[in-house]
Amino acid sequence: MRAGKQTFVYEHPPRVAAHASIVGPKESQGPLAAYFDEASQDDLFGQKTWELGESEMLRRCAGRAMRDGGLTQEETQAFFSGDLNNQIIATGFAARALGLPFVGLYGACSTFVEGLVLASALISAGFLENALCAASSHFCTAERQFRFPLEMGTQRPPSAHWTATAAGCALLRAGEGAGIYVTAGTLGRIIDYKIKDANHMGAAMAPAVQSTIAAHLDDTGATADDFDLIATGDLGWIGRDILLELFRESGRPLPPETLVDCGASLFYQEQDTHAGGSGCGCVASVTCGWLMKRMEQGELKRILVTGSGAMLSPTSTMQAETIPGVAYAVRLEVK
Amino acid sequence: MRAGKQTFVYEHPPRVAAHASIVGPKESQGPLAAYFDEASQDDLFGQKTWELGESEMLRRCAGRAMRDGGLTQEETQAFFSGDLNNQIIATGFAARALGLPFVGLYGACSTFVEGLVLASALISAGFLENALCAASSHFCTAERQFRFPLEMGTQRPPSAHWTATAAGCALLRAGEGAGIYVTAGTLGRIIDYKIKDANHMGAAMAPAVQSTIAAHLDDTGATADDFDLIATGDLGWIGRDILLELFRESGRPLPPETLVDCGASLFYQEQDTHAGGSGCGCVASVTCGWLMKRMEQGELKRILVTGSGAMLSPTSTMQAETIPGVAYAVRLEVK
Repeated sequence: MRAGKQTFVYEHPPRVAAHASIVGPKESQGPLAAYFDEASQDDLFGQKTWELGESEMLRRCAGRAMRDGGLTQEETQAFFSGDLNNQIIATGFAARALGLPFVGLYGACSTFVEGLVLASALISAGFLENALCAASSHFCTAERQFRFPLEMGTQRPPSAHWTATAAGCALLRAGEGAGIYVTAGTLGRIIDYKIKDANHMGAAMAPAVQSTIAAHLDDTGATADDFDLIATGDLGWIGRDILLELFRESGRPLPPETLVDCGASLFYQEQDTHAGGSGCGCVASVTCGWLMKRMEQGELKRILVTGSGAMLSPTSTMQAETIPGVAYAVRLEVK
Repeated sequence: MRAGKQTFVYEHPPRVAAHASIVGPKESQGPLAAYFDEASQDDLFGQKTWELGESEMLRRCAGRAMRDGGLTQEETQAFFSGDLNNQIIATGFAARALGLPFVGLYGACSTFVEGLVLASALISAGFLENALCAASSHFCTAERQFRFPLEMGTQRPPSAHWTATAAGCALLRAGEGAGIYVTAGTLGRIIDYKIKDANHMGAAMAPAVQSTIAAHLDDTGATADDFDLIATGDLGWIGRDILLELFRESGRPLPPETLVDCGASLFYQEQDTHAGGSGCGCVASVTCGWLMKRMEQGELKRILVTGSGAMLSPTSTMQAETIPGVAYAVRLEVK
């Protein structure tokens, strides 16, 4: 069912039948380490390049969710995924290894949530019985692609994010029973606040997150108080403050204690990641690790998870273009 | 409704309420020129870079479909799109200008058909009343990104494709009445035949196209004879022959007269494009121009359109990886 302008309310909400998260060495030293299913000390994941390593991390994560959910490759009906690499090659190679019907997505760091919005709709409508929704990112593949060769040891400004080496995957299934359900999803619009600094992603994405959360609340008639927690993907410390300010300015302030940023939660501030974690794998791993486990432990009953993406490329940066942002949201509820 | 392993049959098939196509200078000298809505002699489309030019072409094409379909920006519910640029920036900037709820896709040159499969499902299920499905490509943005700076004048091998400067957009709407309907859609699996030559895309993609067409026929119980035409996106002359051979080998030959490749149809062989046209905009513009207009003129009643993508990047090519392919299919019927 359509609600308002941008939101889908799922009449037959899919259940999160399994969820998996894998992180790299730095993430495994952060405050959420205990919540991840696998913490690799090898950021090549046994492969010969970082790109293949990221792909292997994603494949392993999706395979784990499939296995934990009790499905074989033959029974799994779709793989919704994307990543930050040019032409989403980490996902392409993972999908090749998985051999599943494939839906390739690109919403930058919002991709995991974008996939949840779409897959939930297809399951609710009976087009699919199940689907894997995943995303990955890798510090080393992202740095050399978006910024500089790592060997240069370039100094990072305080507003820069640290791309998480991480993957998350949720297996959604039609059906009943106790568990976490995806009950609504909201598409986002591209919003551009004319930020040009590719080291200031929190500022570039915060207006899109504000737009999507506001749309979700308007479309469903909810308020922030209806949620135990509102998670943002990777606004980081700076972007989180901007988001709170944007909501204050809009006349509908968000209670700061309700708002948790996955990127700002993934690392200790002493880990020197500056603005916080980012990347497609950030919101994916933190949702599939920390947030869903807290829901299963009874700590959280109803949350809104947003993923946000900065739709830039090195080419657009070199051409002095501004950085448009986009954000998607899903409502997760324990039933 | 789900049919077989990979196919959705739409219980409430969306109607193609409008379709638009825009091409660049070289495409406007090809055999299909008369079918396109707009043929620009300026491959910058009034912008200062090719990337912004491609984005402007896509924006203009989507705006045209929206206008021809009688919808305002406020009434249009979603924009499904993607392109070949790193991080799909042509699409990102077009979506920024359009201001519509956005679904970013990456299926390489198959993206337009991937979007039709997903958007049709969401419309059929009532999550959306309408959606724009689009994709673009540009010879100059693709050459410098995937291959060499154009200024080098690098010689192209005979198996190389010519990336079409083109965009296509279909406006899908729920509802009744005479017209073209999207009645079924098939997801594809990633298939890799271990081709490593980035100038031999037809060979890299043909096995994925064979897999998806075969899945569609199996899932729906159809044969090639049930279609007036089976279109492939951009296999080109060489890939088309490989596809026919793969079907012969599978024991279910495709009648060659039924099979039309959009890329091989877009240019005269004398235009020196070698293997034929390619790019996300190839299947998008040829479907929205040539094929849909022939359906409206009564020449074609029921066709299967496949889009195929090669999931490579310059990085994967430099790392000597093979090139996986993926393909999606939609069944279009006049009612």
